[in-house]
Amino acid sequence: MLEDKAPQLTPISAYGEFGLIKHLTESFSFENESTEVSIGDDAAVINPGNQKVVVTTDVLAEGVHFNLGYVPLKHLGYKAVVVNLSDIAAMNAVPTQILVSLAISNRFPVEALEEIYAGIALACKRYKVDLVGGDTTSSTSGLVMSITAIGLESSENIVKRNGTKPNDLLVVTGDLGGAYLGLQILEREHAVFLANPNMQPEMEGYDYILEKQLKPEARTDVKKILEELGIKPTSMIDVSDGLSSEILHLSDQSKVGFRLYEEKIPMDSLTISTADELNLNPAMCAMNGGEDYELLFTISPDDFEKIRNHPDFTIVGHAVDLDQGNFLVARGSNELIALNAQGWDAFLNK
Amino acid sequence: MLEDKAPQLTPISAYGEFGLIKHLTESFSFENESTEVSIGDDAAVINPGNQKVVVTTDVLAEGVHFNLGYVPLKHLGYKAVVVNLSDIAAMNAVPTQILVSLAISNRFPVEALEEIYAGIALACKRYKVDLVGGDTTSSTSGLVMSITAIGLESSENIVKRNGTKPNDLLVVTGDLGGAYLGLQILEREHAVFLANPNMQPEMEGYDYILEKQLKPEARTDVKKILEELGIKPTSMIDVSDGLSSEILHLSDQSKVGFRLYEEKIPMDSLTISTADELNLNPAMCAMNGGEDYELLFTISPDDFEKIRNHPDFTIVGHAVDLDQGNFLVARGSNELIALNAQGWDAFLNK
Repeated sequence: MLEDKAPQLTPISAYGEFGLIKHLTESFSFENESTEVSIGDDAAVINPGNQKVVVTTDVLAEGVHFNLGYVPLKHLGYKAVVVNLSDIAAMNAVPTQILVSLAISNRFPVEALEEIYAGIALACKRYKVDLVGGDTTSSTSGLVMSITAIGLESSENIVKRNGTKPNDLLVVTGDLGGAYLGLQILEREHAVFLANPNMQPEMEGYDYILEKQLKPEARTDVKKILEELGIKPTSMIDVSDGLSSEILHLSDQSKVGFRLYEEKIPMDSLTISTADELNLNPAMCAMNGGEDYELLFTISPDDFEKIRNHPDFTIVGHAVDLDQGNFLVARGSNELIALNAQGWDAFLNK
Repeated sequence: MLEDKAPQLTPISAYGEFGLIKHLTESFSFENESTEVSIGDDAAVINPGNQKVVVTTDVLAEGVHFNLGYVPLKHLGYKAVVVNLSDIAAMNAVPTQILVSLAISNRFPVEALEEIYAGIALACKRYKVDLVGGDTTSSTSGLVMSITAIGLESSENIVKRNGTKPNDLLVVTGDLGGAYLGLQILEREHAVFLANPNMQPEMEGYDYILEKQLKPEARTDVKKILEELGIKPTSMIDVSDGLSSEILHLSDQSKVGFRLYEEKIPMDSLTISTADELNLNPAMCAMNGGEDYELLFTISPDDFEKIRNHPDFTIVGHAVDLDQGNFLVARGSNELIALNAQGWDAFLNK
């Protein structure tokens, strides 16, 4: 971690506010024709053409969303962008621009900010989005990052949360629970390190779930896959707080209930074995863990054949009438277990 | 201040993350047709019509931008919106939507957040902007607010910082220095209070400058006034960091120099008398104090007659060739004093 005050590191005050933003952002280039005015004016100017503007914001706070004891700053910058792009993808829109606000304690040198911005730059490049604005300030303690992401999309392509009808199929991308178990491993090894700094952390073999936690990806690819399949989801949301709570959001907005089949929940074998190792129920990790940034969506039952064998998608349940409620159908027993929003809650986690 | 843990106050955890956002935002209504989807989905959807999208973000941190010892939370919410709308106004655009991100320590009860949102609501109503998104999280300490403002405007009306030509006139709205002197009074009385909590603060008679500091307004009215006068500024910026540093920004972007006449800088009589009382140079307060949120712009010399006697505007100088540099012309002596960006700098103020 770049937090000490070794003499070769540069204090933020060496640059001043304007110089700092310029220094951190001058290497960024632009990918989108819609970016007309960027950093350096009072505001950015975006040309939406004939499209709608989709905009979202997420804030990440040190000690709540991340622990700098085991989250590298570059990964943090990358992830902060990704979680916002995931929200744009969940509207079935194409992300185009981001704005980055940072409040950061003076204990961080300029080199720490450079690391964060290196992660932001990597995400911008990977997802072809332009950094068009932001603000950087000192804070009395800790690090808070707030990112706003903008996407453009034609009206007819945008997918909200309120279009699900009873009998629609519930589909999820990728696999779930990995990010949560990656976090458990990081926390376990960090605790070991704090107890005995000479112990080597045992991270080997956990690569997939550590990457799901530290360097998640936004499923901006799903939009194109669905278009090629000729499918427009009836509702869509990203899995940031856990499958259970996302299903309840769709239920709330679409006025339907859901049946989720435990045996259908897609999980990687490493996720399952790590859950077993930690005495956790793998399905509960997928349902309540969160931070997977996969997409959860519903489709008309007429589209079943188009999607049934597609490797990127898993049908995990279906919508029912609202008065039938939201239930997990347990593996084997078919017992109905009420879904609840245990989703990762920043205010309770403290 | 609503920071104690009196039993009648509600801990944030009583609501949980989703419930809290819903609780805080459910009373907000919408003023703009361009707001199509608001809070409650993964992202907001804005219909720009045929206009460009202007977007800016600003972050305010406790202990850096405000001291909760003397800044009421409602004022803080109001001001956080205003500083962003000021940036939109400085592009000569009409603000339409905002997104609010808050990182807040658990020491604040729900009632404190309600106060902040009451201020945000007041600003939304006053400026006819819609709250369309945001994120609220706990932080390990303190309060950080990050607001993103969106405006819409036709391409031909947007004013950037790079259009000033030599001989253009430099114009400022309203009067300057008041916000800075208001802060000095607040800090003086807060220090007195800390030394002796039984002393009554002496705020009487300082109303105008206290209001400039605690409840500034964004000059969104200027756009219409200029249209009625038939003037389109060649460049524009808002005065957030002090006249001196804003002039240097215009210089940098427009590749011109400036002459600023000390005797022309508009100041309220209370600003001047308070500066005298505190042994401060009033012009220096205007030039380096900041937070006035007035607009600074340049116009073609051909527009001189249209603006010369207008009560909202003061011509304070003019542009020269870049190689002639940026100088203050001192009152009386006509001595040239180099302008420098002493602007209020969050990283140096700590």
